[in-house]
Amino acid sequence: MHTNKQASRSPGRSAVLLMHCPDRKGIVSAVTKFLADHDGNIIDLDQHVDTEQGVFFMRVEWDLEGFAVPVDRLRTELSPLVDSLQATWELHFSTDRFRMAVFVSKQAHCLYDILSRHESGEWSVDVPLMVSNHPDLEDLARRHKIDFHVFPKTPETRAEQEERETALLKEYRIDFVVLARYMQILTGRFVREFPNRIINIHHSFLPAFAGGKPYHAAHARGVKVIGATSHYVTEQLDEGPIIAQDVIPVSHRDSVTDLVRKGQDLEKVVLARAVWHHLEHRILVYHNKTVVFG
Amino acid sequence: MHTNKQASRSPGRSAVLLMHCPDRKGIVSAVTKFLADHDGNIIDLDQHVDTEQGVFFMRVEWDLEGFAVPVDRLRTELSPLVDSLQATWELHFSTDRFRMAVFVSKQAHCLYDILSRHESGEWSVDVPLMVSNHPDLEDLARRHKIDFHVFPKTPETRAEQEERETALLKEYRIDFVVLARYMQILTGRFVREFPNRIINIHHSFLPAFAGGKPYHAAHARGVKVIGATSHYVTEQLDEGPIIAQDVIPVSHRDSVTDLVRKGQDLEKVVLARAVWHHLEHRILVYHNKTVVFG
Amino acid sequence: MHTNKQASRSPGRSAVLLMHCPDRKGIVSAVTKFLADHDGNIIDLDQHVDTEQGVFFMRVEWDLEGFAVPVDRLRTELSPLVDSLQATWELHFSTDRFRMAVFVSKQAHCLYDILSRHESGEWSVDVPLMVSNHPDLEDLARRHKIDFHVFPKTPETRAEQEERETALLKEYRIDFVVLARYMQILTGRFVREFPNRIINIHHSFLPAFAGGKPYHAAHARGVKVIGATSHYVTEQLDEGPIIAQDVIPVSHRDSVTDLVRKGQDLEKVVLARAVWHHLEHRILVYHNKTVVFG
Amino acid sequence: MHTNKQASRSPGRSAVLLMHCPDRKGIVSAVTKFLADHDGNIIDLDQHVDTEQGVFFMRVEWDLEGFAVPVDRLRTELSPLVDSLQATWELHFSTDRFRMAVFVSKQAHCLYDILSRHESGEWSVDVPLMVSNHPDLEDLARRHKIDFHVFPKTPETRAEQEERETALLKEYRIDFVVLARYMQILTGRFVREFPNRIINIHHSFLPAFAGGKPYHAAHARGVKVIGATSHYVTEQLDEGPIIAQDVIPVSHRDSVTDLVRKGQDLEKVVLARAVWHHLEHRILVYHNKTVVFG
Repeated sequence: MHTNKQASRSPGRSAVLLMHCPDRKGIVSAVTKFLADHDGNIIDLDQHVDTEQGVFFMRVEWDLEGFAVPVDRLRTELSPLVDSLQATWELHFSTDRFRMAVFVSKQAHCLYDILSRHESGEWSVDVPLMVSNHPDLEDLARRHKIDFHVFPKTPETRAEQEERETALLKEYRIDFVVLARYMQILTGRFVREFPNRIINIHHSFLPAFAGGKPYHAAHARGVKVIGATSHYVTEQLDEGPIIAQDVIPVSHRDSVTDLVRKGQDLEKVVLARAVWHHLEHRILVYHNKTVVFG
Repeated sequence: MHTNKQASRSPGRSAVLLMHCPDRKGIVSAVTKFLADHDGNIIDLDQHVDTEQGVFFMRVEWDLEGFAVPVDRLRTELSPLVDSLQATWELHFSTDRFRMAVFVSKQAHCLYDILSRHESGEWSVDVPLMVSNHPDLEDLARRHKIDFHVFPKTPETRAEQEERETALLKEYRIDFVVLARYMQILTGRFVREFPNRIINIHHSFLPAFAGGKPYHAAHARGVKVIGATSHYVTEQLDEGPIIAQDVIPVSHRDSVTDLVRKGQDLEKVVLARAVWHHLEHRILVYHNKTVVFG
Repeated sequence: MHTNKQASRSPGRSAVLLMHCPDRKGIVSAVTKFLADHDGNIIDLDQHVDTEQGVFFMRVEWDLEGFAVPVDRLRTELSPLVDSLQATWELHFSTDRFRMAVFVSKQAHCLYDILSRHESGEWSVDVPLMVSNHPDLEDLARRHKIDFHVFPKTPETRAEQEERETALLKEYRIDFVVLARYMQILTGRFVREFPNRIINIHHSFLPAFAGGKPYHAAHARGVKVIGATSHYVTEQLDEGPIIAQDVIPVSHRDSVTDLVRKGQDLEKVVLARAVWHHLEHRILVYHNKTVVFG
Repeated sequence: MHTNKQASRSPGRSAVLLMHCPDRKGIVSAVTKFLADHDGNIIDLDQHVDTEQGVFFMRVEWDLEGFAVPVDRLRTELSPLVDSLQATWELHFSTDRFRMAVFVSKQAHCLYDILSRHESGEWSVDVPLMVSNHPDLEDLARRHKIDFHVFPKTPETRAEQEERETALLKEYRIDFVVLARYMQILTGRFVREFPNRIINIHHSFLPAFAGGKPYHAAHARGVKVIGATSHYVTEQLDEGPIIAQDVIPVSHRDSVTDLVRKGQDLEKVVLARAVWHHLEHRILVYHNKTVVFG
């Protein structure tokens, strides 16, 4: 996060602490006491305990208006407390603004949807970069004044092209990547560079119909609902932590073409929900699952 | 179908023709001309063409009031027409009444739901027989004056016990079987005796989480929806033609226990929808898929 | 319908007959006999009888390949038959292409969605004209090379402005109008010019929360679901025949702003479904209700 | 709450504090400090701030194992803290067990569902009493060994009969009442005796189709979804705080009879969800709205 344009939905400035740690007594008390002691007013607090794993998860958002710790001292002041809890944690400010890259291939429906949310100000995010393995959607990128880079890929050139993509993402200081129906498999090396920072949309209700041509597979199986799944990308194809899923009913009347048409509406809405949660710092990942404080 | 109690939703008597045949020109015209020529008034007509397979499906229901062909002559009179279309067909009358057997194990929620629909008259069906591998639900059966037979099964005794079950189903003149969370696998031999006559409820949105413990698997995978699937049983476990499916949203807050609780409501409703369509003669099976004229 | 660009989903040419008439015996037979007698192959047939009103509804689509009646003679040849049934009827060809006008105010989410479906070819429709009471969205129109006309309205100027709009719609040979969150009430006079030809999206599950500010009203009432309704516009505000509706769950956590954000996704998808059904000639209107052959 | 049978889902004993109070800084900190200071391990904490009204809501559940305050001292020990926050609050123990009365008329589907959840142990609740204005469902009550009292009502006898009902509810030490399709309007006097203690199921998505015959009204309006709403009963008919709502899609094919059949499945599931939340002490009521910590 690099810019300081004001997020649209937070009229005042606020901070978000996202953390998970081994469960024990007194965590909520310790953190909220820290905030109370420094005149912090909690706007939203959500916590969850995974009793099976013995893990505590929390998201707490508080008003920076009147908060006694200056923003540039906050990380330092919080450290002793969260470190004593052995927490994995992130601190975000509503004045931060993510920089997002969009990867696409030839299908445009998710991209149109993303661009309209961006342009209309529904999402407070910068989109400086688009990457594709095909030139088809360049005009759309250009219309929105987004740099567009084409990296055609073959099994032989994949690794090399991904290195160029990685360099580009760093050059553009990209915070996270959205795969908007990007039809190329990413290597483990690329994925490891952006842990929990690549959001994909898969056009089925995973784990059903992982892999290619899920609408054809759904049609062949004769299912009565089809779905879409947005997840963080991991090294295992279509097996990353699920962020959002939804389904719609279908019937014998629906051809594969109908499934595609109906599914596209689902894909764009489910992907948008996942990106929204990511932008709002509402997602914690643990053991290949997500806690989404919705 | 053996009894002649009046179906609750059909105030008058009607007939239903369910058929599928190779697609060609003039099928609807030929069948509806037959009905019109004999003063048949169509109550409902639904047709579907699977253009990929070249198969035509139709369900037509017509009023028997004033229909010129007597009921006991109808099959004979229809035969030349439907045979000329090379159709696979069934003829049903609203005065028929199915005889249903329910197979259960220990879980009662689907059974309670079935019994209440039966007792309240929501379903026009006879339920003379229940079968279980455990004695636990005998009291429930007895309360509803349904014969209850226990067939404990081990891998060694399965085949022998199924023979007894088959004999019993024949003795009770059972038309179709509902597996209301029956936790035993049926052999191919048993299944072949009742093709498209055994309705199961599986507690996941198939094909995801086929096999045992689907709620545990769904929890481990971290899905954001869970589902239930009702299907006709075939020799391949959980791979029969799907009749009905539905899902509900879940979140990280839901433990396996919560998934079970929420899923049970789904299971009973989805199973009931499938049974309803079966009772209404609305299901055609072709190539391991269903056409449900809903 | 004025152009002859090929509809994307119909590889061959086909015709659609949409009709409703007083119910009597032999209607399906008479119509399908006409088609069979002229070598017409039915692609899709859907019929419905409103037994309460005694009205018969049918949509039949057939292949024009090999059909013995030439397209330019079809209307004449069909007339005696459908007139003898006292039917209200429409005949459409897949080679026709609707001309659609979009009315907007300041909110862009539905418009973005419409334009992307149009531009990507998802919808086979021409959009030559946009009308607004504000200049805000002119750039969007211009980007898509759509003529944009602004008609500011006050209670005093409404009638006069609508006359200009009507003239414009005629000049552009517009077949139907989509109100994509157009925040002006149309007069009865305007509405009567385009019966069942104006599609609106209302941001509630009608009949709940008709009129202004439905998200505020839903929030105040504390509902647990919010919805969107697409309907044909009639002289009674928000009381026209409903084409499509859908809902999503909400909770106490959702502020009015959250309802607006979540609802917008619903609005655009529900409006698009209604427009799709209209483009596909799948809607019949009778007694302020729709039969949608989906 | 009078009995001490163990709640099915809480393997150990726990306490729940439900509270709302004017919003200010430090509430979470103050309450969680109290728990931490007495070795309380929080199992679940959920809070919400209604920023518009300036009201803070919280539900916190903690383990009583190892908790330093004895159960019989807890109320006294908590009082100074929650009183200083000017909180409205309730304290519940997992060892408590609610006593529920069910009011019915002639329709049995919700009652069947309630009785099966009760009998199977899905709900940890006692049901000692049923009340009806008709004798029809007495056999069902008797089968489940629940006392059944009939109070026929006319406008003239309503007040008098309700006095008898009130006396009976007190005699049976009833904690809350479920109206399982009870078709009588309750007077303000009766309702005031049981504030937020009477749960009703209305067979529409309120506020649409309040009052009588909602399925008929939905059919006449031609809606494409129907719903069910569970709410606490207040003096204004069908206007109490909504606890749970859900909908299902319908079409022109559905007669009023079909809507009733489909809706009944929805009614029983939505009512059961509301009762579950009530039993789990997850509902706070404020300004005729509910906060449901689900």
